[in-house]
Amino acid sequence: MRGKFITIEGPDGAGKTTQVRKITNYLDSIGYKVLVTREPGGTSLGERLRDMVLTLKGESPVPEAEALIYAASRAQLVKKVINPALERGNIVLCDRFVDSSLAYQGWARGLGIQELTNINGWFLKDTWPDLTVILDVDPAQSLKRLRGKKDRLEKETLAFHQRVREGFLKVHSMYPNRTTIVDASQCPEQVFETILFEIKKSGIINI
Amino acid sequence: MRGKFITIEGPDGAGKTTQVRKITNYLDSIGYKVLVTREPGGTSLGERLRDMVLTLKGESPVPEAEALIYAASRAQLVKKVINPALERGNIVLCDRFVDSSLAYQGWARGLGIQELTNINGWFLKDTWPDLTVILDVDPAQSLKRLRGKKDRLEKETLAFHQRVREGFLKVHSMYPNRTTIVDASQCPEQVFETILFEIKKSGIINI
Repeated sequence: MRGKFITIEGPDGAGKTTQVRKITNYLDSIGYKVLVTREPGGTSLGERLRDMVLTLKGESPVPEAEALIYAASRAQLVKKVINPALERGNIVLCDRFVDSSLAYQGWARGLGIQELTNINGWFLKDTWPDLTVILDVDPAQSLKRLRGKKDRLEKETLAFHQRVREGFLKVHSMYPNRTTIVDASQCPEQVFETILFEIKKSGIINI
Repeated sequence: MRGKFITIEGPDGAGKTTQVRKITNYLDSIGYKVLVTREPGGTSLGERLRDMVLTLKGESPVPEAEALIYAASRAQLVKKVINPALERGNIVLCDRFVDSSLAYQGWARGLGIQELTNINGWFLKDTWPDLTVILDVDPAQSLKRLRGKKDRLEKETLAFHQRVREGFLKVHSMYPNRTTIVDASQCPEQVFETILFEIKKSGIINI
């Protein structure tokens, strides 16, 4: 039986990595085989593409090129990592996926959520997530959590990050069945409990 | 007045670079301002993407990723180089452009010419070429012209290069108004004369 595909979305500083680790440990402890990956990156080609977009060195990509580079990295990840794992019956947990493109490039950069859905839908085919958990948090709070060296996206203005938040809420309103919003301003344990509840409610796996 | 956009297409070894140089010198000699560029590449981001696809080192992109990387490079080139030059009223001459994606990824790799038209049409908008000259030659002949180190695409089988040729002919049959086929098995001077005749016939510029 084909496995299930869960993605965790939200801005930098929302706690995605922490939650991915907690979910993985939990699912693992109750006997599920979980493959964890991340975007952009997750393959060696993808990591090189990630560096190309996020580095502050060299020419910045125009918004359309940025969207297409992320899409290329995603196509590679789907074919090389995600689909094979789903075919083995694994649960695949991905730290960011297509909805980041819809929120960042589609909404915050103004390219259009529907347009980005079309571009990505071309190669995703039936590999849309079974469940997408969007961690929602005020950018003023999430940006404070980021320490040290910031990459190109993290250096954007607060106004940009507010548009990203709006973008994720918009994505949820467009895809209410597949996506769910979780308040990420709570403490990590509470956020984790809410996510488990949402996974249970979705009925995609027995937990 | 917006300038005109001419692209030269065909397989490696068809003589595209030679013809681009001849056309540029000619148009220059009769007083046109010509901007010459090439694909993949043509911008610093594009050159890095080009290396990523054509190098034999590292993980090869899956066909969809390959198509999206070329599209990203193209989007950057259009926004940063081609559109500004057309807006200045220049003639832009490009060594390979969107029709290479239609022939290589769309047809030879089997992703679909219509699908690749859709992906590229998203960011090209009104920057489709005014005229596309497709240099047609038997791969058995064009491959012989290539000397020295070959890149990843050039190392493909003869069967692949035959599908590329078919792809370009297919593209011409789908877009007969914008594209024209020139027999590139002739000597370079004859090919050049035929191209000039085709540019004249198209009526896009006075020569």
